[in-house]
Amino acid sequence: MIHKILNKHKVVLASESPRRKQLLEMMGLKPLVIPANIAEPITNERPYKQAINHARNKANKVAAAFNPDTIVVGSDTIVVLDQHILGKPADAKQAVDYLRLLSGKDHYVYTAICIMWNNHCISDYERTKVSFCTLSEQEIEEYVKTGEPFDKAGAYGIQGYGAQFIKEVRGCYFNVMGFPLQLFYRSLKEMAADE
Amino acid sequence: MIHKILNKHKVVLASESPRRKQLLEMMGLKPLVIPANIAEPITNERPYKQAINHARNKANKVAAAFNPDTIVVGSDTIVVLDQHILGKPADAKQAVDYLRLLSGKDHYVYTAICIMWNNHCISDYERTKVSFCTLSEQEIEEYVKTGEPFDKAGAYGIQGYGAQFIKEVRGCYFNVMGFPLQLFYRSLKEMAADE
Repeated sequence: MIHKILNKHKVVLASESPRRKQLLEMMGLKPLVIPANIAEPITNERPYKQAINHARNKANKVAAAFNPDTIVVGSDTIVVLDQHILGKPADAKQAVDYLRLLSGKDHYVYTAICIMWNNHCISDYERTKVSFCTLSEQEIEEYVKTGEPFDKAGAYGIQGYGAQFIKEVRGCYFNVMGFPLQLFYRSLKEMAADE
Repeated sequence: MIHKILNKHKVVLASESPRRKQLLEMMGLKPLVIPANIAEPITNERPYKQAINHARNKANKVAAAFNPDTIVVGSDTIVVLDQHILGKPADAKQAVDYLRLLSGKDHYVYTAICIMWNNHCISDYERTKVSFCTLSEQEIEEYVKTGEPFDKAGAYGIQGYGAQFIKEVRGCYFNVMGFPLQLFYRSLKEMAADE
């Protein structure tokens, strides 16, 4: 299990997402949080590649300051609807626009992780399909008023008020929250076996 | 949204599950928790029927003590693997047995809710498919040692260490946690429209 593999190791999370920290804590870890503060421009590359690049850049930047036996984890989440990437909404108007787009449709959430440990590096990603309910204008307005959409890619939080709008998830749920726990565990086992 | 519909109403949760309380709080509610303490025998009836019966019995018993304008919510979760119902494990040995059964397989989680409000009653359920990783004997042993399996149907918690063993969820994730939030919201809208 994750807490057994990482028992005696320092874990650094190169991300300021409180949800990622919370998920690592749920696994029994006490990660040190060092935000990488790198630019995450949206490009024309395929979403999984962008997510992996961002995750790797975050881990790379933060790992430079630590000994190689520290586990440094970078992660990045990208929300894709009809081939378009929905980032964090700039303001209430854009949050409303995003929620109108998500309403009644399926979208995909890609989260990449990059683990750096003892001069090894593993990067990988998960993709989860999320089916949204049809939202009325009133629901969108009420939801934006909760303030929840603002710091989240795609303008919704699945671990919050947004939960009531989610009809179905297909894949890793924690991936939608921002960190694919099963993939993280699989990757750690692979790295530990290589030691 | 849920917190808007229930704005001025007292909400009573007829269940002692801390996870259900947590999910209702996530929706902005402050439920009063009154465990119904009814028997939940496993019978030969179909799982969804058993879950609905238990949810209804819980709501019924607790609602008797409140005014009709109080919203009383009963809920029950049943875990089904290969037609067999896995209840809460009686001891560590049974937890190990259940986890061996779940390992590498898909199972189904049924959660029923029953809402009583103004002499109306709605009961319904959701079914979610959960795909488990293949677990080694060491993983099973380590997991049982965390103590997490004991108070949970099926001997695992998806919102805890168990998360790392879940390959895929198909359906409502919160249903697996013990309370189908989208179904709850849909049912409340229906009841509010009938007023």
